[in-house]
Amino acid sequence: MRVEGHLAPRAANHQALTPLDFLVRSQEAFPDRPAVAWRDRVWSYREFAQIVARMADFLIRQGVGDGDVVSIIATNRPEMLAAHYAVPMLGAVLNSINTRLDAGTISYILEHSESRLFLIDPASQAAAEAAAQASGVPAHLLGEVGLELLAPRADLPLPDHRGLITDEWRPICLNYTSGTTGKPKGVVYHHRGAYLNAIGNVLALSLNQRSVYLWTLPMFHCNGWCHTWAVTAAGGLHVCLDRVDPALIFAEINSHAVSHMSCAPVVLYMMINHPGAASIKLSRRLTVSTGGASPTQALIEQLDRLGFDLIHLYGLTESYGPASLCDLDDADLDAATKAMLLARQGVRHATASHIRILDDNGQDVPADGATLGEITLAGNTLMAGYYRDEAATETAFKGGLFHTGDLAVMHPDGRMEIKDRAKDVIISGGENISSLEVESVLHQHPAVL
Amino acid sequence: MRVEGHLAPRAANHQALTPLDFLVRSQEAFPDRPAVAWRDRVWSYREFAQIVARMADFLIRQGVGDGDVVSIIATNRPEMLAAHYAVPMLGAVLNSINTRLDAGTISYILEHSESRLFLIDPASQAAAEAAAQASGVPAHLLGEVGLELLAPRADLPLPDHRGLITDEWRPICLNYTSGTTGKPKGVVYHHRGAYLNAIGNVLALSLNQRSVYLWTLPMFHCNGWCHTWAVTAAGGLHVCLDRVDPALIFAEINSHAVSHMSCAPVVLYMMINHPGAASIKLSRRLTVSTGGASPTQALIEQLDRLGFDLIHLYGLTESYGPASLCDLDDADLDAATKAMLLARQGVRHATASHIRILDDNGQDVPADGATLGEITLAGNTLMAGYYRDEAATETAFKGGLFHTGDLAVMHPDGRMEIKDRAKDVIISGGENISSLEVESVLHQHPAVL
Repeated sequence: MRVEGHLAPRAANHQALTPLDFLVRSQEAFPDRPAVAWRDRVWSYREFAQIVARMADFLIRQGVGDGDVVSIIATNRPEMLAAHYAVPMLGAVLNSINTRLDAGTISYILEHSESRLFLIDPASQAAAEAAAQASGVPAHLLGEVGLELLAPRADLPLPDHRGLITDEWRPICLNYTSGTTGKPKGVVYHHRGAYLNAIGNVLALSLNQRSVYLWTLPMFHCNGWCHTWAVTAAGGLHVCLDRVDPALIFAEINSHAVSHMSCAPVVLYMMINHPGAASIKLSRRLTVSTGGASPTQALIEQLDRLGFDLIHLYGLTESYGPASLCDLDDADLDAATKAMLLARQGVRHATASHIRILDDNGQDVPADGATLGEITLAGNTLMAGYYRDEAATETAFKGGLFHTGDLAVMHPDGRMEIKDRAKDVIISGGENISSLEVESVLHQHPAVL
Repeated sequence: MRVEGHLAPRAANHQALTPLDFLVRSQEAFPDRPAVAWRDRVWSYREFAQIVARMADFLIRQGVGDGDVVSIIATNRPEMLAAHYAVPMLGAVLNSINTRLDAGTISYILEHSESRLFLIDPASQAAAEAAAQASGVPAHLLGEVGLELLAPRADLPLPDHRGLITDEWRPICLNYTSGTTGKPKGVVYHHRGAYLNAIGNVLALSLNQRSVYLWTLPMFHCNGWCHTWAVTAAGGLHVCLDRVDPALIFAEINSHAVSHMSCAPVVLYMMINHPGAASIKLSRRLTVSTGGASPTQALIEQLDRLGFDLIHLYGLTESYGPASLCDLDDADLDAATKAMLLARQGVRHATASHIRILDDNGQDVPADGATLGEITLAGNTLMAGYYRDEAATETAFKGGLFHTGDLAVMHPDGRMEIKDRAKDVIISGGENISSLEVESVLHQHPAVL
């Protein structure tokens, strides 16, 4: 074909990919559909957009502008979800801080990120305010922020982010991740990657406008694996949950007819061992995505009896959360086979690109289920790099691939399975011991919860 | 935030968006899952990838290379689907030609597109071969192409498109569209837009790996609205159908447990008036997406009794097919209300950007369901432009928006409804008559099929 100047991109046919569009579209397309539920309240997409507009207005009045970093430490409250839209709509960057960190680490993150403002959930008040004071970053307590932030105001329009976010590579979020050693590193997410991983989640979980997503996964964790944007893209309902309490989880599942949730396996163990499990009434199967540790056969069997289907996901902060998934094609398998297959980290997301398991010479390991190699990633759902840390960025991307540090085998069916973390090996008597093997053996004992 | 060089895009975290990835991923992720069915055959994703590899090998041997245009005129046979991957995987551009065109028009399109090769379905042999001869473009008859193209060969790998498609703005397809006057115009699709509209279709139709898509829509029509790539992205099954025959459609629905199909309303009328409708056995509701003319109340009622749910889509060749959709949130509405609501073209796709209805002064019309304006589009799922026609391209994109020529109102619920085509107005006795109104009145009469 001829190359012609009039076929070049123009404003009408080329716009920056950004997950902020999902909220703009959902509030236009179905303003009256429920968007967010918390405690005894439900807000429609129209109202949620008004909450976001109100938060943006508040941020502007605090001096937040294009390129600023806004830090937040919060449970899964509606304000935390709203911040995922209000902050980047101003061209600013959201830095969500792990609620389990101590004041010293929080202070380090506030300083390293050069935060312009710090939003604090009362649940984290003591450590967060100490950190704010130490770092000199202005702090505001949620519940006071925006003075009735959760009372939607119809008179404020959503900020028009289109004029600011013209480059989809612009940063949207920072997520500080703690390695086994050293200071936490600031993982930079861009609008393009956040958009694409959110879409990948919609596909992976078959989210749609009838989906009801219960927020058992912390939103501060890789922006809730990008479900903060994915559920909105699908037009589903976010059910906020500000503490992980099995009784509360069962109550929310029953009252909202929850269809999806995500959590670490430990939350699932809490649930199946709770008396509330007996009272659960599901009107449809509930899909639980989990990661971090492999689900055991006993867990899978017990969840199946409750009406839960498991999806096993794998990813890292650097990959916006989920990069691969493993679900079961065939529901008729016996529990032992299900457990064996679901222990695998599976296959790449539709929007992720290559996952390769490489040996020490950079060659793909054979798909024999036995040969160990390192999982490497490449594609559009990987971080831009580590903020203010060029050396660590270059090390992570050495040789043109992202190195996860996770050791895995490739099974003949194309599904990978992690056997160990390269950085997380227990050495005893001079021998390397796989921490996953220790976990797995422990979980097989009926007395181990 | 600071702008830092090491945070710039690099090969590991920035790759061109292309729908070709969906096939690469699906054949990696679930090689044994059924991908394509035709007549009495079913091919797995592994086998379909081998068919694509075989077609690519054939094309290379015909001299097709990077930047060449390959034209095809074909029914919905597996080779037509395979061409949607094999041709662009070589960096070439697929030009699908409407099977209803005459030899003169086909010849014009072959010459205007400067086609390197012309693949012909025996069903279009006479006109196509005459056109090939007139234009001097080498032609090959499908069924002969690749000599046993549909017998997968395991020894050929898929072409590695990653080295060629490094720019997501590169053209992937040409689609010649005939206006009411003048020569057909060659609409240029790029990889980015095809990727995003395919993803938009997955979201709009909730496609997933259990989806079975029946090909009642011609693949030559906007590349089957990009479902050629969407169904593959979801890991669903393409059921090929090389002629629109109600008896055959019912047989395929029953034998493959079809979940989705797309077609013009005229096909639906053929179906509900066919004796085969009585024998249909659906194991699940079937979603039909339709466009072009509004579904009537009688049609909706009759389809509902068959177990079909309707989605009304709107789009143009220039928007890769669907740009907006209208479905019903509430299944309990009465048929008259359903028909009223489903007559609307609805709201924009999740991956489309703005849809605005503008008056003659370029102002948005009020959402009053009455004020007429022109539908304008902007976003990432719009053509690059018209091939070798700068003037028409600039006219279409005048003022930084794409002008559809369709006249519509905006309803208070945010759903738009087309009232007429600007270019398709009947003038009688000096008065403008809406052709849609004529159609609508005609369809209300029970004697009108």
